[in-house]
Amino acid sequence: MAFGWIDEQAELRRRAGLVRTLRPRAADTPLLDLASNDYLGLARHPEVTEGAARAARTWGGGSTGSRLVTGTTELHAELERELAGFCGFEAALVFSSGYAANLAAVTALAPHGSLIVSDAGNHASLIDGCRLARGTTQVAAHADPDAVRKALGAHDGPAVAVSDTVFSVDGDAAPLAALAEACREHGAGLVLDDAHGLGVLGDGGRGAPHAAGVAGADDVVVTVTLSKSLGSQGGAVLGPSRVIEHLVNAARTFIFDTGLAPAAAGAALAALRLLRREPGRAARAGEVARELHTRLTAAGLEAVRPDAAVVSVRAPSPERAVRWAADCRAAGLSVGCFRPPSVPDGISRLRLTARADLSGAEIERAVRVIGETRP
Amino acid sequence: MAFGWIDEQAELRRRAGLVRTLRPRAADTPLLDLASNDYLGLARHPEVTEGAARAARTWGGGSTGSRLVTGTTELHAELERELAGFCGFEAALVFSSGYAANLAAVTALAPHGSLIVSDAGNHASLIDGCRLARGTTQVAAHADPDAVRKALGAHDGPAVAVSDTVFSVDGDAAPLAALAEACREHGAGLVLDDAHGLGVLGDGGRGAPHAAGVAGADDVVVTVTLSKSLGSQGGAVLGPSRVIEHLVNAARTFIFDTGLAPAAAGAALAALRLLRREPGRAARAGEVARELHTRLTAAGLEAVRPDAAVVSVRAPSPERAVRWAADCRAAGLSVGCFRPPSVPDGISRLRLTARADLSGAEIERAVRVIGETRP
Ligand SMILES: Cc1ncc(COP(=O)(O)O)c(C=O)c1O
Ligand SMILES: Cc1ncc(COP(=O)(O)O)c(C=O)c1O
Repeated sequence: MAFGWIDEQAELRRRAGLVRTLRPRAADTPLLDLASNDYLGLARHPEVTEGAARAARTWGGGSTGSRLVTGTTELHAELERELAGFCGFEAALVFSSGYAANLAAVTALAPHGSLIVSDAGNHASLIDGCRLARGTTQVAAHADPDAVRKALGAHDGPAVAVSDTVFSVDGDAAPLAALAEACREHGAGLVLDDAHGLGVLGDGGRGAPHAAGVAGADDVVVTVTLSKSLGSQGGAVLGPSRVIEHLVNAARTFIFDTGLAPAAAGAALAALRLLRREPGRAARAGEVARELHTRLTAAGLEAVRPDAAVVSVRAPSPERAVRWAADCRAAGLSVGCFRPPSVPDGISRLRLTARADLSGAEIERAVRVIGETRP
Repeated sequence: MAFGWIDEQAELRRRAGLVRTLRPRAADTPLLDLASNDYLGLARHPEVTEGAARAARTWGGGSTGSRLVTGTTELHAELERELAGFCGFEAALVFSSGYAANLAAVTALAPHGSLIVSDAGNHASLIDGCRLARGTTQVAAHADPDAVRKALGAHDGPAVAVSDTVFSVDGDAAPLAALAEACREHGAGLVLDDAHGLGVLGDGGRGAPHAAGVAGADDVVVTVTLSKSLGSQGGAVLGPSRVIEHLVNAARTFIFDTGLAPAAAGAALAALRLLRREPGRAARAGEVARELHTRLTAAGLEAVRPDAAVVSVRAPSPERAVRWAADCRAAGLSVGCFRPPSVPDGISRLRLTARADLSGAEIERAVRVIGETRP
């Protein structure tokens, strides 16, 4: 029977304790949220939700077509100008998701005959970009500029190195300045995914590339998502105008995808303006993360020192990680739980996100619950 | 220099007359729109835009995480139930875009060792799904069930046939009943992209699979987009519960992507309810398309007989197609212009979309402008 093999896979997942199920949440939940990527606590901010509502009323429920046909509104152009300006780039291009932005950047910048050097810890969307690209991919050891340098040195022709700026699983940062140097030595481009850096790192949340002094360089292209610190949906590619023009002409997830919904563009723009007005939110997210880490470590838990707003805590096994997260939940705390096959190294962990608007009492409560429920 | 090769490509595009540029539109434009995919004219409907606004206020500007972590709200679940029910399927799964839904369906249903038989006219997102899938792809002649049958007959192991229901470029329909029969003969699954069928074809807009009597079958999986007839953004996969559960566990563009923004889910749900209440909108879109075709043909233009709401008109060359569309625009009419490399056969055309809310006078005006500006 068609799809008969699906049942065998389902059975294997059941036996391995790896079944995933959806758990719809209510609009008002008493759970303390340390699981979302709403780093600045802006998704529910009235200015952001009003930005969404106003945009829907003004521009419609959808953008109605490809950005190249009817899907580009003045709102999209405004968001692109402000995002590029804020992060320190010449130009920006908005996509329907961060995932689509990553597929676009990698595929359009790695033509036939080119080399992509991809960090072993990169996000799934960058990996899919590498798979879709016409160029050849070489996976480099995690956060290792020398490995990147060596791979680039062995190749003739166009090349890019591709890396998350902050890795989504463990929250550790990539060595951006060293990566940029390795790329420059070999005339290669550098593509950075700042999904977890924008709004958290850099002056007032301008992102990890800005903090590392590589924003706006003519050989650096950055992707961001509007779905984390900016509390909305969508993604963008930031870079030199010529690269952005190239994407408009060559990126399939740009050309053949409906433009981002006006409400999402409006929410992201409102969040960006709020962040400009209240730059302290960015630093606060980092502070909360470091405080979480300090307290978790003091409680004897094995947590990775956070470089941004993600704090990763090791769990002994997938089953016990799932159980741990469920016990936290029963005690009123929502945490993320990452396990195979969603982790590159097979290690299961709780994944905590530090929201800028967490109070001291909430941090204390979170740490207490995590400690009390530990396996 | 990094990205130096981009300038050469740009120069080639310029010489070939194939440069694409973005043209941001204002919120109120006097242009008559025959370019958007807003088939039912719902994107600006107050119920739809209020659906978006209300959802943003209730649920926030973004869904804040992967659907498996914090990104599933009761609103997403409600939309999934109603979409599945409306289209005649057991279950549905909502994605951030139709593009992401197609990547998910194809990759998750074509494991290593399987065969994908893909129609030569399929949408870019299905093609990218084939490229990302672990299975092997064989391209079948356009709309040719015998070609599909033959390819399936030569393969041992899991297999799927993949096709648009209504092809986006020419607006012609796929032979769904014959495709389903060919698949059944060989125990293969059938994956159909109903992006341009939902809201236009089938009883009250239930879509092409419903009209062909294949909706809800245990070997048929359908993808839809929320960005065309439903006037919003997002996509969904519809199918048997076991297939949907499989996608939740296996589809990378589901697991590693932020959930659809609440505003987009709210807008799509409002549009779906409106369509249930006013089923005549679906048939009207088809009528408008047929009327456009009849009048264009009477005016001596070469237009493809529409099976849904897309009317394609041949142009003599890419340059003249671009010029034709620009002349229409100057005369107050917005039409799509498809040309290489966005067309599978290299033929340039104007692409007109028939909105259900076009008046007789507007149809007449559109046909007059297209005729007067013809190359
Ligand atoms: C590092 C990274 N890049 C890209 C994405 C994709 O962005 P989006 O969810 O906005 O599509 C995510 C998470 O979802 C991510 O963690
Ligand atoms: C046939 C077809 N499938 C899928 C898509 C992608 O859907 P979306 O734009 O909602 O991502 C489109 C158009 O955009 C399409 O025409």
